This record gives sequence, structure tokens and C-alpha cells, in this order.
Amino acid sequence: MDYPVPMENFRRQVNERLRSSVDSVGPPRLREAMAYSLLADGKRIRPTLCLLAFEMFDTDVAAALPTACALEMLHTASLIHDDLPSMDDDDFRRGSPSNHRVFGEGMALLAGDALLAYALEFILHNAETLHPEKLLGVMAKLIEVVGPSGLSGGQALDLHCQGLDQVDPWTVEEMHIKKTGALIEASVVTGAILGGASQEDIARLTTYARELGLAYQIVDDILDETSTFDEFGKEVGQDRAAGKWTYPRLMGVEKARQRVRELIAHAVAELDGFGERASMLRWAARVVHDRAAA
Amino acid sequence: MDYPVPMENFRRQVNERLRSSVDSVGPPRLREAMAYSLLADGKRIRPTLCLLAFEMFDTDVAAALPTACALEMLHTASLIHDDLPSMDDDDFRRGSPSNHRVFGEGMALLAGDALLAYALEFILHNAETLHPEKLLGVMAKLIEVVGPSGLSGGQALDLHCQGLDQVDPWTVEEMHIKKTGALIEASVVTGAILGGASQEDIARLTTYARELGLAYQIVDDILDETSTFDEFGKEVGQDRAAGKWTYPRLMGVEKARQRVRELIAHAVAELDGFGERASMLRWAARVVHDRAAA
Repeated sequence: MDYPVPMENFRRQVNERLRSSVDSVGPPRLREAMAYSLLADGKRIRPTLCLLAFEMFDTDVAAALPTACALEMLHTASLIHDDLPSMDDDDFRRGSPSNHRVFGEGMALLAGDALLAYALEFILHNAETLHPEKLLGVMAKLIEVVGPSGLSGGQALDLHCQGLDQVDPWTVEEMHIKKTGALIEASVVTGAILGGASQEDIARLTTYARELGLAYQIVDDILDETSTFDEFGKEVGQDRAAGKWTYPRLMGVEKARQRVRELIAHAVAELDGFGERASMLRWAARVVHDRAAA
Repeated sequence: MDYPVPMENFRRQVNERLRSSVDSVGPPRLREAMAYSLLADGKRIRPTLCLLAFEMFDTDVAAALPTACALEMLHTASLIHDDLPSMDDDDFRRGSPSNHRVFGEGMALLAGDALLAYALEFILHNAETLHPEKLLGVMAKLIEVVGPSGLSGGQALDLHCQGLDQVDPWTVEEMHIKKTGALIEASVVTGAILGGASQEDIARLTTYARELGLAYQIVDDILDETSTFDEFGKEVGQDRAAGKWTYPRLMGVEKARQRVRELIAHAVAELDGFGERASMLRWAARVVHDRAAA
């Protein structure tokens, strides 16, 4: 599916800014490893969500661009670590060999560590015009998201559950919310914070983004079962082979699709009060919805 | 060597605060892995340096304790990742099996990631009384230290140089400064920032700490060649076996000791203007000096 024009514009701006972001960073080999994964072709979903949320409250998109890029850096850091042999052991990512296949395991580990820290550094270095309170709000949200209550907590649950014969639905849901939902939520919320949204609006967007993020992860797990390498850009059927706990495994593909539809309906309902301003966030929800049905 | 009473007090306070710091963090297995390495017996050099620098400018040590603990978390995160098979492949750390030997490689990777983020989260959650400017100053310093111009950059250089037949002394120095010096420097500098030190005082303490940190790493490399497992708490002779570039390899143990003496002399000279206030930082320099001669 093609992006609508405003989103294609955002993606182009993000890609341009990302390209120069690591030009002069760290020792050469580390920089190459960081750039290899960061600049690989990607949908830039998280930066785009950040900019879309920002635009609901403010027009000067340049003010949110560093944070949008940082979100992609954090996402990339987590992908590099996820692909490592001790984790998901994925040889491909976004249609190309994964980071450790090109740079070796040690350098891939360090590229992930470096991108994680550099995401935050990048915001701090480009925050001249930002009020300290907004800056601290954004930093706090991003730091929480990569920590034990976010990404690394979700991955740890995932890893731990792989060895188990039975896992309850709440644990699977918690894992998905932390593993994927948290960063999608942070994308929308940091955009809203930077745009100057009220606490009430931030709360509604938080719920929207959390449901959207969970739906997104469930769709990813459905596609791992139903799509092909060419469609998916990485190897398929890996989750089941690794004994991972996913919604499709827990309840079957059809019920997982049903859950996606429910989550998307809830997410979109949260946008009611925003009227036309939220039309692009509605569109984003529809994309996730349609992807599950494909 | 025994710690003088004020430093022993600091170490006790840091250990107490660290013990409760991860009580309710993340999923249980991840929490165990984080606590295992964080609460292992350690000298708490970085937190102690932070508190010593703070105390030169302010007496309310409680205000610097969260940052002191965060420094130990960052240090622990880097140790866990360094010990992984794809990096230094160390089976022991602080006299006990290393993190991945107990929790597996995947969980150790995540425990490192989680501690890295949680260090910053811990400061943010305990910053009620802190002025936003001081808070941002401390955060910026710590983020820089773990990123591509700090720890991960130093490790990447280390990894890259292992395959080379010849490395020039400047690269070895750069590697050491980033790998170890940067975090030692940040320990002293964050303490000074929190204490309200002037830019001039911060600059002098930065030089002191950078030289001290480099000396500390050289001593570590000397001990890797000259000490025993019991003295060192981890396997010895590993650097040379792995083809690592260290000062002893570059110039021999005697010249490396000479370099330590020079660095310590420079470091201590930077403290001249502080008079009695800097007596504990002088003591810390002497400890590193004497450790090299042992």
C-alpha cells in the first residue's frame, strides 16, 4: 500500500535527517555497523506516528524531527539485538543480511548499545529551542520505553516463555505491549508532548497508541505464519519454530485477526474528540487493520 | 588495601541504595539477572568518586546518591556485555560466574540493555529536588559516556584492533580513554555538577579524572599480565591470549608502570587549587598508583 502524500513527505524528511545523523559518529567500523541497519529501507512507522501526533497540535515539524529520528534509532537498536544468535537468531532483516551477519556478533552488540545511547544524545544535541520541561518529558518517556518496563522487559518475557509448555493470555499480552506497544505508544506520546498537548489529550492518545501497538504486533505474528519471505522481508515461520508464544499460537489465526479488529476499533474510538485533526492517525489504524486481513 | 572511613561509609550507602533499587523492576527473570551482577561484591569506585567530588562542593550527599548508583548500573551493564562470548568471552567476574554463564546469553544481553536504560530512569525517578539544568547536565554526561564517543566506541575500537598486527599508541590511548576513562571522568564530573561546581572547577576535575581513568585501565592491563585469579577476581592473561592491544603489550610492563606514574602525577597536579577539599581524590590517585607497583 502506498503512503498518502503527507506521510511520504514525513518519511522523506526522516530519511534525510537520519542519513546525516551518524556521519561523524564514533570509530569508523562502529559507525558503519550503526548506519547499515539505521539507513536500511524501512517504513519509518514510529517517526511518522510521532510527527503525525505532533502536527495535531503544532505546525513546526522541524521541532519534532530529532525525536522522530531517535525513535527510529531505538527501534533499530532493538532489532539488531533481537536478531542476534542468542535471541531470535535471524539471518535477514528488511530483506538484507542482519547486522551480525555482516559485522560479526560483537560489533552488532555494540552497534545496538551505541544506537540506544545515541538516540538520546541526538535529541539532546538538537534541543536548542526546546523548553527543558518538554525535553525532560520526552527523555523520560524514551528511557522508560527501552528499560525493564519496556522493550528489554518484553524481550525478557518472550525469551523466558519460549521454554514453557503453557502461557496465560495476560502474559502474552504483557509481553506484546512491552515488546512492541511501548515504543509505538512512545512515538505518539512524545509527538504530543512536543506539540504541547494537554494531559487529557495525551491520555487519549496514549490509549490509542497502546491498542494500535498491540494490534501491530499481533499482525506481525499473523504474517509470520501466513506470508512469504518476499512479502515479509525476513524469514517466516520462525516464531513457531522457536517455540515463541504469539496470539496466533494461543488462539489461532482467525481469533487473532478478530482481536486485531477489536483493538483497532477501540483505538479509533479514542480519536473521536479530535475530529479532522486525527484523520491521519485514523488512516494509520486502518492500515494495520487491513494488513491483518491480507 | 582498606578504604578510609569516609569512603567505606560511601560504599555502604551506595550498596544499601543499590540493594533496593531493583526490587520491583521488570519481569522476575530479568530482575534476577540485573540484580545478580549489580549486587555482586564490588569496589564501587565510580559511585565513590562521584560522591567524593560532590562533597567538595556540597554536604547533602543524599542528592548525589541516585547518580552514584546509576554510575554503578552503567558500569555493570558494560561488564555484562563485555563478558559475553562474542566480546571478551569471560566466564568469571568479581570472582563469580559471569552473567551469561548463569542466565544464558540472551538474558545477559537484555540485562545489560535494561541496566543501561534503568540507570537513567533511576536518576529521573529520584530527581524531585534537583534543578532541571543540573538534571539535564548529568543526563547528558551519562548518555554521552555510554554512546559511540564513550564506552561502546571504546569497545568497538578494542574489538576492531584485536585483528590487527600493529596499532599505533594514539589509537590504544583513545581506546582506553573511551573504554574506561570516560566513565571514571563522568563519575567525578557528575558529582561536581550536582555539587554546583563552577565551570573552571569542573574543567580541572575533568582533567584529573581523565588521567586517573586512563591510569586505572593501564593498571588493569598490567594486572592481567602479572597477577593471579585470586588477586584479580577473574581469569588472568586473557588480554594477550585474545590478541588485545594494551599498554603492556605496546611498551612492556615497566614502561606501562612509568606511564601510570606520569598520569597520576598530572592528575594530582590538577587538584592543587582545591587544597584540603581534594584530599580524598588525592588518596584515590595514590591507590591507583600503588596498585600498579604491587
